[in-house]
Amino acid sequence: MIYFDNAATTRRKPPEVAEAVAAAIGSFGGVGRGVHEASLDAGMAVYDARDKVARLLGAPSAARVSFAANATMALNIALAGLLPVGGRAVTTAASHNSVLRPLYKARDERGCTVDVAPVGPDGALDFAAYERLLEGGADLVAATHASNLTGDVYDVARMARLAHEAGALFVLDAAQTAGALPLDMGALGADVVCFTGHKGLYGPQGTGGLAVAEGVDVPPLLEGGSGTHSFDERHPRFMPEALEAGTVNAHGLAGLAAGVAYLEREGVGNVAARLRALTERFEAGALAVPGVRVLGGRGGIDRCGIVAVDVAGADSALAADRLSNEFGICTRAGAHCAPLMHRALGTEERGAVRFSFSSFTTEDEIDEGLEALAAVASK
Amino acid sequence: MIYFDNAATTRRKPPEVAEAVAAAIGSFGGVGRGVHEASLDAGMAVYDARDKVARLLGAPSAARVSFAANATMALNIALAGLLPVGGRAVTTAASHNSVLRPLYKARDERGCTVDVAPVGPDGALDFAAYERLLEGGADLVAATHASNLTGDVYDVARMARLAHEAGALFVLDAAQTAGALPLDMGALGADVVCFTGHKGLYGPQGTGGLAVAEGVDVPPLLEGGSGTHSFDERHPRFMPEALEAGTVNAHGLAGLAAGVAYLEREGVGNVAARLRALTERFEAGALAVPGVRVLGGRGGIDRCGIVAVDVAGADSALAADRLSNEFGICTRAGAHCAPLMHRALGTEERGAVRFSFSSFTTEDEIDEGLEALAAVASK
Repeated sequence: MIYFDNAATTRRKPPEVAEAVAAAIGSFGGVGRGVHEASLDAGMAVYDARDKVARLLGAPSAARVSFAANATMALNIALAGLLPVGGRAVTTAASHNSVLRPLYKARDERGCTVDVAPVGPDGALDFAAYERLLEGGADLVAATHASNLTGDVYDVARMARLAHEAGALFVLDAAQTAGALPLDMGALGADVVCFTGHKGLYGPQGTGGLAVAEGVDVPPLLEGGSGTHSFDERHPRFMPEALEAGTVNAHGLAGLAAGVAYLEREGVGNVAARLRALTERFEAGALAVPGVRVLGGRGGIDRCGIVAVDVAGADSALAADRLSNEFGICTRAGAHCAPLMHRALGTEERGAVRFSFSSFTTEDEIDEGLEALAAVASK
Repeated sequence: MIYFDNAATTRRKPPEVAEAVAAAIGSFGGVGRGVHEASLDAGMAVYDARDKVARLLGAPSAARVSFAANATMALNIALAGLLPVGGRAVTTAASHNSVLRPLYKARDERGCTVDVAPVGPDGALDFAAYERLLEGGADLVAATHASNLTGDVYDVARMARLAHEAGALFVLDAAQTAGALPLDMGALGADVVCFTGHKGLYGPQGTGGLAVAEGVDVPPLLEGGSGTHSFDERHPRFMPEALEAGTVNAHGLAGLAAGVAYLEREGVGNVAARLRALTERFEAGALAVPGVRVLGGRGGIDRCGIVAVDVAGADSALAADRLSNEFGICTRAGAHCAPLMHRALGTEERGAVRFSFSSFTTEDEIDEGLEALAAVASK
């Protein structure tokens, strides 16, 4: 089996990840739920994960990283917390439903306005339209760092600068880029970075979170036990506890720390260069296959290990089924939770077949994938 | 080390739990994110967990079980979803902050009314007061099945019946009881049961969820990618996807299924009997120690593996520290996120030392714990 669905979840993890989780399951107590050894061990593992993630993302400190179940939960927390009743949000057509739907919920239930900056049929953001949308001012811009469909990396530093000039906070969806690209939230100007643990950070599912810049106050979406200040009627407002309610997933976070440690050893810049080379190799091969159209691919300032294709106008599910059944190649077909992107690219009906790579993908796998793609496209 | 903090997280798990998680981390794709083998394997593991949890809790079917990061998240989803703007909620003083704080949030932000039925200094619920609170009608009753402080199990079937007579839905916080007591949500009359995976179900942290009765519609709190219906502007409303946004923690849920499989083999009734015997043995010993007061203990209709004590009026943190440092016994001190319960019991200042047991606790450990408690209380 060749696994090309790493943008959904990286399947191959460094072996230390599963080892760390298994060891944690056999030894941890609850974080902040006691002063005994088992609880303190869990607390130290979670702190270690916070610290590693903070360094990886350029967050001000470990305390500014709150963990959540996945990037979607982190985005829900950030968007519900930072968008006031009746507020104005701007996003882009490259957004995943994990950005769009929380914003539509705010529109439907809290009287907010949501405007979407378009992308062209090549997947590129229409910056002129984005600037026009910001002219009236906004409370919040929420944008994806890279399209989960095409892998195009957007110029989010420029977007954040324009957002700040319009008085808006800038929330970055880094679900596809954390660990896959060097990312410094201070340099990018992101006020909040939402990330997931089970993709480019090579950690387990059930991990993710948000890194919040100093001075940005995200109120809690979920409230509950905090381990301290039990007599306050409301959840504490200090980071990182403010955005974590109930028992933290210390078992999973021990694995996340091991995943980030792998990235530290490899160097994220090296991983990014490897992903770029794999992407370019696959894309060049795919462009040479008659009947195959590569979606996007030149819409941004970089690539992040994803190539989506339209196979001779065929339904993407059929093409992906054939790749899986006849060649043992795992891709993802369909709409990829990015409806506005499909509309822009003209693939709303058929969907797209997405090939996505990881640090462990080899050139041989890329070449095998291309042979299979050519075979599927030829008949 | 003797671990008596199982009400925070069960530390010893059946070995299959860590094995299942480690195997999943090495092989799963994302659930519902592809039609290839890795994604289907993950999907089947999650379905297996749903099915096992549904049978354990007496839920109508696997499809009525949605997973969440922990019981707190499940309670936030249920309470925010079922309490309308300006609605009326009733809870009890035995509630954990994971019930109280989401209700106070609804009061502060959505104009809801929250009334709290008192418990007496023995921890028993004042049923007459509860009935009076329901006289004016209510939208929702949220109640804990057992106090996380005293372990007293409340007569929630009676509470649910009264709630329904008043026109209210009944949401059960089963954080302390799922897996520790036989629980049939149909027989109890619970409309929603919120559970956690890492306590009595012997699963990993990062797992939990809510079982929802047929005909009860809980709208999503979090919205995002759903893997299907990508072109709808809002998150799907059908169970179980309605209450799960983003990638489900299939890695952790593989472990949860192994934990529930352990309970199936042992029989929850047998586990409950073992916990009751351990509790009674510890309580009888503790009552014989001069200067030790057992909190609650006769406030409900059963016990669930918890004994909380007040040690000769000493600060609970000091007593727990001594138990840990001098005797290697892990307990939990402080307020246990149950502020109204401490007020009722008169332990608001000092907190309480909580001893909590699991299916793996032995009688020898109980006796060692009692010796240590006697030593700490004697000087």
